[in-house]
Amino acid sequence: MSYLSGFHAIEERIKSGIPCGPLLVAKPGPRARELVDLALTNKIRVDRVGTADLDRLAPDHRGIVLETADSIEAPLTLEEFLAASEDRQNLTVLILDEITDPHNYGAILRSCDQFAVDLVVSRRRRTAKNAAVIAQTSAGASAWVPNAEEGNLARAVELLKEKGFWVYGAGMDGQSVYGIDLTGRIALIMGGEAGLSRLLGERCDGIVSIPCKGRVDSLNVSVAAGILLYEISRQRNALRSGKGQNKRDRVKNEKGG
Amino acid sequence: MSYLSGFHAIEERIKSGIPCGPLLVAKPGPRARELVDLALTNKIRVDRVGTADLDRLAPDHRGIVLETADSIEAPLTLEEFLAASEDRQNLTVLILDEITDPHNYGAILRSCDQFAVDLVVSRRRRTAKNAAVIAQTSAGASAWVPNAEEGNLARAVELLKEKGFWVYGAGMDGQSVYGIDLTGRIALIMGGEAGLSRLLGERCDGIVSIPCKGRVDSLNVSVAAGILLYEISRQRNALRSGKGQNKRDRVKNEKGG
Repeated sequence: MSYLSGFHAIEERIKSGIPCGPLLVAKPGPRARELVDLALTNKIRVDRVGTADLDRLAPDHRGIVLETADSIEAPLTLEEFLAASEDRQNLTVLILDEITDPHNYGAILRSCDQFAVDLVVSRRRRTAKNAAVIAQTSAGASAWVPNAEEGNLARAVELLKEKGFWVYGAGMDGQSVYGIDLTGRIALIMGGEAGLSRLLGERCDGIVSIPCKGRVDSLNVSVAAGILLYEISRQRNALRSGKGQNKRDRVKNEKGG
Repeated sequence: MSYLSGFHAIEERIKSGIPCGPLLVAKPGPRARELVDLALTNKIRVDRVGTADLDRLAPDHRGIVLETADSIEAPLTLEEFLAASEDRQNLTVLILDEITDPHNYGAILRSCDQFAVDLVVSRRRRTAKNAAVIAQTSAGASAWVPNAEEGNLARAVELLKEKGFWVYGAGMDGQSVYGIDLTGRIALIMGGEAGLSRLLGERCDGIVSIPCKGRVDSLNVSVAAGILLYEISRQRNALRSGKGQNKRDRVKNEKGG
């Protein structure tokens, strides 16, 4: 079992409709009372417990904790996703390669929710797994963002290319994002805290960099992911409003299988 | 005393030239050995200790820990900063209002370093204070980014306006960042985890929002700060390379005191 203690995380998890509960309540303040009402409306059991019980389950609780199953439920497969979205021209897939810090993973999912990422693909065995921290850091977005776990990310990249995706890895010595067209079908690979793996880097159509230059070496990975997702969103908006410039000619077959 | 355990944080702190040490070493791997060399080159004392000692000082250590003083040193005052930068037209000041989570604060400082923010202003009493976590999360950038602590942020905002700054608060129901000119002298206010305070919001020239729409309510504050700093940087670059559009006419006196 995992235990969510953030108000947002609890609220979003209850609203997601994914089975959860019971909701464990010690000292409900006004916000916790709202969550109790929400739980009861959604037919989720509410148990009164002692503060010491919550201290044990979730040391940072604020008087209320939601019990959930351990893993993020119901991942798609990449194939299912591609089949279901065959006729969509603008798609964003985010590939997370060895993002092992659950705080970073959660913050990235929260950005994925905000920028409407269509699918998150992560490596089955080498990804942050603490569902409670992830749910909390993502403010509950982990319950919403469609995700596929793949054993072999290199294969996933090849599959995406066959379906007309341009695949970019985020890295430090790549092409400036200012000069890259990020409209259409885009797959973005974020390497973990240690950077993009060579195996995946070699399969990318290009390495995309955020122009910046500090004294320390790079941006936090969740901040970098947020910026690149923002830039994808910004470019699509500029294109829709007729401000797109230097749009390159993209022939669908060029990347086709 | 505080204790830095991240390799980056230790390296950047040693390089910063701000007094620190000793460097405490238990089991040095290749990366830790480099840090030992760096410390010795910089005349910082290196002590051999047991792993149990490090476990006690910094539970997440990787065989090496740097002892430092407790607080982030040598803050400027806002007045000193403004006097020293009187002839600069492009300036970015980031005002942090009640960012209490040291992980968020550290990640924001790391972005400030990358996007060359000229000054970070924070409220003297209501800001994250755990220097060790901040240094680590910022990968050492907390040693580089100029910062001023102010008791009264409203007064700081008025002072900035007198000096020709446009002051924008980051918020959810403001004007889209796509339509805001962020070149020139810009002060950006990030509210804490609970949003922008009304007192400061009312003093802003405008509220700036990142267009996005998820099921949960907002981006993580460090991600939002990173995106807005990126956008400032992007607009300045576009202007330099002659791609600026819709540049509004800004008369310096318009905001002058």
